[in-house]
Amino acid sequence: MIKEKGILFVLSGPSGVGKGTVRKALFEHDTNLKYSISMTTRNRREGEQDGVDYFFRTHDEFREMIDHNRLLEYAEYVGNYYGTPRQYVEEMIEAGHDVFLEIEVQGAMQVKKNFPQGVFVFLIPPSLEELKNRIQDRGTESEDLIASRLQEARNEIEMMEAYDYVVVNDSVENAVKKVQAIVQGEHCKKERVAKQYKALLEVEK
Amino acid sequence: MIKEKGILFVLSGPSGVGKGTVRKALFEHDTNLKYSISMTTRNRREGEQDGVDYFFRTHDEFREMIDHNRLLEYAEYVGNYYGTPRQYVEEMIEAGHDVFLEIEVQGAMQVKKNFPQGVFVFLIPPSLEELKNRIQDRGTESEDLIASRLQEARNEIEMMEAYDYVVVNDSVENAVKKVQAIVQGEHCKKERVAKQYKALLEVEK
Repeated sequence: MIKEKGILFVLSGPSGVGKGTVRKALFEHDTNLKYSISMTTRNRREGEQDGVDYFFRTHDEFREMIDHNRLLEYAEYVGNYYGTPRQYVEEMIEAGHDVFLEIEVQGAMQVKKNFPQGVFVFLIPPSLEELKNRIQDRGTESEDLIASRLQEARNEIEMMEAYDYVVVNDSVENAVKKVQAIVQGEHCKKERVAKQYKALLEVEK
Repeated sequence: MIKEKGILFVLSGPSGVGKGTVRKALFEHDTNLKYSISMTTRNRREGEQDGVDYFFRTHDEFREMIDHNRLLEYAEYVGNYYGTPRQYVEEMIEAGHDVFLEIEVQGAMQVKKNFPQGVFVFLIPPSLEELKNRIQDRGTESEDLIASRLQEARNEIEMMEAYDYVVVNDSVENAVKKVQAIVQGEHCKKERVAKQYKALLEVEK
């Protein structure tokens, strides 16, 4: 029997939206998801294990990863590199596991470029909706404030364009349910199931 | 606040796969789904209500519906017409309800042509998988039987091409969960949420 491949799910969104909280709650429920392990050049802290908490590498090793395009994304932060190694993600997916990557917007856009077959979920705050309602319902805000808030909202909407799904984080419970539905629904996509069936048929032709 | 539109979900699949059972179980759980009401020329039976069980129409009225393209699909069966009126579906969707249509494969293909924005779910029997496994695992079947079974499987796969999702009906409970995930996931699609947000922004430009 041909095993169905896993899927890379990328959860992103503006800072402060609650990505980490949603990810933690999601992992309390779901056991088939593998959390993507990052690679870093920062020193290993006590109790941290290589290949579990992070893949620990030297600066030279990390730069070689960059040069050989072996990272789905990377960034420098306070003098150290952090990134997502492509190989780990690909191995998990081949083994039939979904990989889950929680990441800020810039990193997600790099992943989108390097791994477009991923499924990209954008978490947005409910305050964007509330903001619209407020602006719409009353006319008391200063012109400048309205303009600046709308600009912020527009920037967020532009970022949404690159994503497949948008989840409003009105409560952690609701957001987790929606992400779980997205994961399950994606596995029912015809393209994924049809490939599996076709592969089986091809074998016997 | 702009209300999100509903979605037309079309559940189809080969006869005998268990579409009706899945649909009934689904409606025991889900209250936002509206079941699409069919139009028919057959006589009203005792206890049946127009606009609830069916829209009851004369043959002339039904033919006028056909001529004016007011049906998403129709078929003739034992001298009577049966069809899906477009107006009911559109009104429910505008009001924010999801509409659910359970229908055989030929009808689903008509709906696909007339209402391509619908979401099409194909229910397949697990015996297709089993069949593959059997054919693959043992070499005792006659050549003819293997060929005929594979042909049947291939025909089913060709029908799958027109659908968005494929759900294996291995158990009613699993199939219902998957359809529910598909419904919830579709509502998180960026295109649907983004339209809503953009519409709100446009108003205030």
